[in-house]
Amino acid sequence: MAPFYSSEPKGPSVKTKIPGPKAKAAITELDKVFDTRSLNMLTDYNKSVGNYIVDPDGNVLLDVYAQIASIPVGYNNPALREAALSDDMISSLINRPALGNFPPTDWANVLKTGILKVAPKGLNQVFTAMAGSDANETAYKAAFMWRRQHERGGAHVEFTEEEMASAMLNKTPEGSSELSIMSFKTSFHGRLFGSLSTTRSKPIHKLDIPAFDWPQATFPALKYPLEKHAEENVAAEQAALQEVEHLILNYHVPPCAVVVEPIQSEGGDNHASPAFFRDLRALTRKHNVLLIVDEVQTGVGATGKFWAHEHWNLEDPPDMVTFSKKAQTAGYYFGNPELRPNKPYRQFNTWMGDPARALLFRAIIDEIERLDLVSNTARVGDYLYSKIEALAAKYPGQFENLRGKGRGTFIAFDNPRRDEFLARAKGFGVNIGGSGQWAVRLRPMLIFQEHHADILVEALENIAKSW
Amino acid sequence: MAPFYSSEPKGPSVKTKIPGPKAKAAITELDKVFDTRSLNMLTDYNKSVGNYIVDPDGNVLLDVYAQIASIPVGYNNPALREAALSDDMISSLINRPALGNFPPTDWANVLKTGILKVAPKGLNQVFTAMAGSDANETAYKAAFMWRRQHERGGAHVEFTEEEMASAMLNKTPEGSSELSIMSFKTSFHGRLFGSLSTTRSKPIHKLDIPAFDWPQATFPALKYPLEKHAEENVAAEQAALQEVEHLILNYHVPPCAVVVEPIQSEGGDNHASPAFFRDLRALTRKHNVLLIVDEVQTGVGATGKFWAHEHWNLEDPPDMVTFSKKAQTAGYYFGNPELRPNKPYRQFNTWMGDPARALLFRAIIDEIERLDLVSNTARVGDYLYSKIEALAAKYPGQFENLRGKGRGTFIAFDNPRRDEFLARAKGFGVNIGGSGQWAVRLRPMLIFQEHHADILVEALENIAKSW
Repeated sequence: MAPFYSSEPKGPSVKTKIPGPKAKAAITELDKVFDTRSLNMLTDYNKSVGNYIVDPDGNVLLDVYAQIASIPVGYNNPALREAALSDDMISSLINRPALGNFPPTDWANVLKTGILKVAPKGLNQVFTAMAGSDANETAYKAAFMWRRQHERGGAHVEFTEEEMASAMLNKTPEGSSELSIMSFKTSFHGRLFGSLSTTRSKPIHKLDIPAFDWPQATFPALKYPLEKHAEENVAAEQAALQEVEHLILNYHVPPCAVVVEPIQSEGGDNHASPAFFRDLRALTRKHNVLLIVDEVQTGVGATGKFWAHEHWNLEDPPDMVTFSKKAQTAGYYFGNPELRPNKPYRQFNTWMGDPARALLFRAIIDEIERLDLVSNTARVGDYLYSKIEALAAKYPGQFENLRGKGRGTFIAFDNPRRDEFLARAKGFGVNIGGSGQWAVRLRPMLIFQEHHADILVEALENIAKSW
Repeated sequence: MAPFYSSEPKGPSVKTKIPGPKAKAAITELDKVFDTRSLNMLTDYNKSVGNYIVDPDGNVLLDVYAQIASIPVGYNNPALREAALSDDMISSLINRPALGNFPPTDWANVLKTGILKVAPKGLNQVFTAMAGSDANETAYKAAFMWRRQHERGGAHVEFTEEEMASAMLNKTPEGSSELSIMSFKTSFHGRLFGSLSTTRSKPIHKLDIPAFDWPQATFPALKYPLEKHAEENVAAEQAALQEVEHLILNYHVPPCAVVVEPIQSEGGDNHASPAFFRDLRALTRKHNVLLIVDEVQTGVGATGKFWAHEHWNLEDPPDMVTFSKKAQTAGYYFGNPELRPNKPYRQFNTWMGDPARALLFRAIIDEIERLDLVSNTARVGDYLYSKIEALAAKYPGQFENLRGKGRGTFIAFDNPRRDEFLARAKGFGVNIGGSGQWAVRLRPMLIFQEHHADILVEALENIAKSW
């Protein structure tokens, strides 16, 4: 394949320890006004290009973390630059609308030629938001309103005085709902109060923050290699589904929706089979509980499909699908008109997203189509997976539980010294992220090609040899 | 004063009923994919300029609603256009960083020459967010972490196994906190799950959405004109403060912070005196409860000060101040280093704001300084207030409870047929918003001048005469 970027470096170039002297000085300065304790690497975005991230000391790394899986088509992508310079973009930036009240004349067109052009099958409407957390939370709100509307007997039934009065007091059951959102253990759905209540990845995310008494079901812990553990894995998935059903029927705060990631990402790259998800859809349908698929990290092409849940071949689509990260904007898709609340201003806020970011997503979609990038991730992912499979055989214990086969470049493995593994990676010229407790998660951009995979695999081998 | 905009229309121009035929057709199209029931007016942002908003049918209205108080320096402001075309802006748009992990090399500089340049007195650090709701929610999270850290005995005390285990179960009291945020009745602080629990403006915002059992205190209901009701108003404020203290000491879920708007905006433009707020600061200090000032709507110049709480002349600054809307970005300021959580990744998310919007705020701040716009709102506000005071005398019952004297252009009055008043306003060439049940709230941009005030007052009089 010809390189997508003609201006990319030939490979990484590590000149100093990271952080180098220039980065260190800048970090000291930044820390006075901005918490830098989670800082990974100060970045010179002007010099970064394509798959390569550059730091202030001139270190050039192959970036397979990509701003926590958020850069879709490369740093300083020329097509995005062109979109950034368009009249529409400038207007959106300097005349930011309150979208619910004063949408721009061409908003329908921006949605149809952008966000909605890639809407998952069966979902033809969108509510725009700002980031993954509020995309999920607005989807949850839609679920609560939908369920209560059913309980009341339909959209035409007016709220009672008691409901309105008790809602103002944050009181259940009349006003505020005594309902819940079910999520899975080791899931991540965001860090605001509602989304954090469904997030179950790590205590550090949740400690000290008030949370709703909502249920969590076990996510099947598959064993690898899959083909060696087929029976156990089916049993784990069946047990998880039984737990879901049990919680739906018995949890003391009844769930009106189940939220699930196609691949649990922050929680450690945990997969389940398409059959599991098809059964989960059937189960939620059976009990009149909504299924919300959180594609914040899995969406937009990296898994070899535009949406990861396309791998499930569902006949009955999810009720809502949330997105953010590589979309560079956020929100949720839905199809069922009943998921529009029965009155205006129930699902509303001042900005309701950012048209500038919606325009950028449109340019990203065009770029994905132009370069056929979803096919690219499928093909390069297979190539990369087989190379790491070979490494795993050669270096036992270092590339454990390799997973993500047939899921594009959305590949991960476990390493017992994971944090040190990630730290050493920089010295070998690659920027990699982790997930869960032990996982090394690969999140290359969609423009990651075979020749980048070769560089990555060489670096992975060098790390493995360095212990 | 010379006009700030040479290219503004001389005045409004209403050619059709609003919505006109072109708008109606576009709304029908938009509604297929996007809920349009809260739509106020479809807008042609390319033709809008300065204080004037233009619709697809060519209707030109003086805009004193300004995208729900969110447009600071006029539509299609040339200085903002220049900022939008800068290399920094383009890079921020197309290379969106995960700010906590990979901040841009010059991020400290962007903060210091922008967001932090206007930091409220005593507050020299910032946590950036996306919109008002998450600005408040991240401030609340900081408050919970701060209080629990005190309870544990300091930043050095490690979390216990019990705390970590119970946090993962959303359980109190060890992991999730049994603590609350106190807000005031008729307040508005956002619509995500935590912020909505503190929002107390209208049932439609809250119905069916699960909420935390958090306390609300009465906000003093001042009577107008203030000088005629001085004694009653002092009594109302004292009673409110006593209720705050009572709730701090006795509410069964103890508050770790009180959140308050300098002027309750969505809730109906409710004011309190500087003395009330000084006492509230003293009371919260006395009981070791944080004071969070929500300046999402009041901040950035419209009240005749850059921050509305500057009117209070506090010696002891608020613990946190949140911002959004006219800043075109969002977040919260703080000073106390103890409000940085004791460990990294406790207050974190992928994007942590948007540098493109931070660069825009920097350009807005420069424009405010260049044109001395805070002085402008103070002076024009006084001018406008006195004109409406005259209208109130001339048309009894139509401009009731006029308020916002000495608060720049942040002026409101009550009208018993408010919704119809706002609808008629469009026919007379002005776009105005409401708040609370009866209030007509004026939210002109900072570039609103005396000649615009004259046009607005003429329109207000025409509406009054039209009944």
